[in-house]
Amino acid sequence: MTLTNYNFGYIIPIGGAEEKLRDAAILRRFAALSGGGDARIAIIPTASRLEDTGTKYEEIFRGIGVAEATSLPFSERSDGHREDWLEVLRKATGVYITGGNQLRLSTILGGTPVADILRERNQKEALVVAGTSAGASIMAEHMIAYGDEGPTPRADAVTLAPGLGLTRHAIIDQHFRQRNRLGRLLTAISYNPRLIGIGLDEDTAAFINPESQLEVVGSGAITIVDPSDMTFSSMDSANRHAPVSLINVRIHVLVEGCTFDLISREARPAQLVEQS
Amino acid sequence: MTLTNYNFGYIIPIGGAEEKLRDAAILRRFAALSGGGDARIAIIPTASRLEDTGTKYEEIFRGIGVAEATSLPFSERSDGHREDWLEVLRKATGVYITGGNQLRLSTILGGTPVADILRERNQKEALVVAGTSAGASIMAEHMIAYGDEGPTPRADAVTLAPGLGLTRHAIIDQHFRQRNRLGRLLTAISYNPRLIGIGLDEDTAAFINPESQLEVVGSGAITIVDPSDMTFSSMDSANRHAPVSLINVRIHVLVEGCTFDLISREARPAQLVEQS
Repeated sequence: MTLTNYNFGYIIPIGGAEEKLRDAAILRRFAALSGGGDARIAIIPTASRLEDTGTKYEEIFRGIGVAEATSLPFSERSDGHREDWLEVLRKATGVYITGGNQLRLSTILGGTPVADILRERNQKEALVVAGTSAGASIMAEHMIAYGDEGPTPRADAVTLAPGLGLTRHAIIDQHFRQRNRLGRLLTAISYNPRLIGIGLDEDTAAFINPESQLEVVGSGAITIVDPSDMTFSSMDSANRHAPVSLINVRIHVLVEGCTFDLISREARPAQLVEQS
Repeated sequence: MTLTNYNFGYIIPIGGAEEKLRDAAILRRFAALSGGGDARIAIIPTASRLEDTGTKYEEIFRGIGVAEATSLPFSERSDGHREDWLEVLRKATGVYITGGNQLRLSTILGGTPVADILRERNQKEALVVAGTSAGASIMAEHMIAYGDEGPTPRADAVTLAPGLGLTRHAIIDQHFRQRNRLGRLLTAISYNPRLIGIGLDEDTAAFINPESQLEVVGSGAITIVDPSDMTFSSMDSANRHAPVSLINVRIHVLVEGCTFDLISREARPAQLVEQS
């Protein structure tokens, strides 16, 4: 692949329903990467229609020992120009995007300074950006907006929309095992077999470092769909809703400690990482 | 917008049904930008299922006075690794992508060295890339794969897929007036109001220079959809196939000689350009 890596900050898509109390391993590791005790976390609860989503995460992050955790409840497009909230974003060391509906994120924040600041600071200033569920989907350039359940691909089984564009290497799906989403991820990948598919189970995160190396953290699995060697796809000739044929798709199922390189497309088990 | 311009070669999406005989204004200007008499044009007829599409364009370009015009009829994914054809692409000064079905282009060429060479050489070596109809749609990062007719937006009226990625500023639609496609372009833009919509009538081309300035050439119009000031979209709450509400969308209808700056988002009539 010739697309060069273009972000300097970690991006951390999470599959939803992450453990928030007991060990909260994913949230703690995100907080540590964002500066630990000195971290300034901005929370974007826009995907959610519940009023207390942002304040709940403020409490969770303060409970973990983060210095500042501030919810920015953007709820209409004009909010995306509020100078006081943009200033919080410009000073944050980490941003956490909550779950809900990813189309709320794209329709309310798309094309506003909020989206520009997240992309710019993640690219150039190593801002850490994490997001769970809808907040994970929005991160990629190509976002799964919604789609059908089931394990095999069907034409038109998925609706893609432009996302935040923090990565151009992958399409991200979440609640993966719990909502039976392999089929829609395969559909998304088969439209153009340039991208990698990342399917995140609940309470499972992909910690993607600035070298585009992904590491699995959490209690579930991450399913990687790699179409590099795909020799055939019938997507261009299949009728809407009809099954799609794909030949030679490589899949990896990775659990905690396993890694995947989004550039070389190599997967490694957890043991090898620990030995090195 | 903070996305920087990232291609050094012209990109020239054409709305389909371009005049090929009499004046052939669009094709002649493409040939001139590619080196005129010294141009080496590679033709990619992959979108079409007709066997003679590529050879017909070879004749057209030779008739215009181009030195070399070579059809590369990639028709399955393994063709995307044919070293003899890749070498023609590496030496070409201009590439012409024909019409047909844009999903054939993305499923057959996506993730192959063909797509990589086009993107790399257009970005870094000023390779000129033109495409008509399906060949126009494939150019953008976000490609309209198919959709419904009609003048107003409806949720799920359009299917997006990853394209070649020669521009991240715009979503491109073609046969625009002839097939009544404003509604599907508005739908595509409303998913994430970060991008500009470019609707190309038949026999009409957008000559987009390396500074992301677009100039209209041809007998029809180009419709620009600019959501920069959009204050509201109901896309996130609309049911599938239901009408979508959009407030404050700016539209320009531009004819030959008019220009539009994809960075500053300013449109200018033809007269002002001639005076300057």
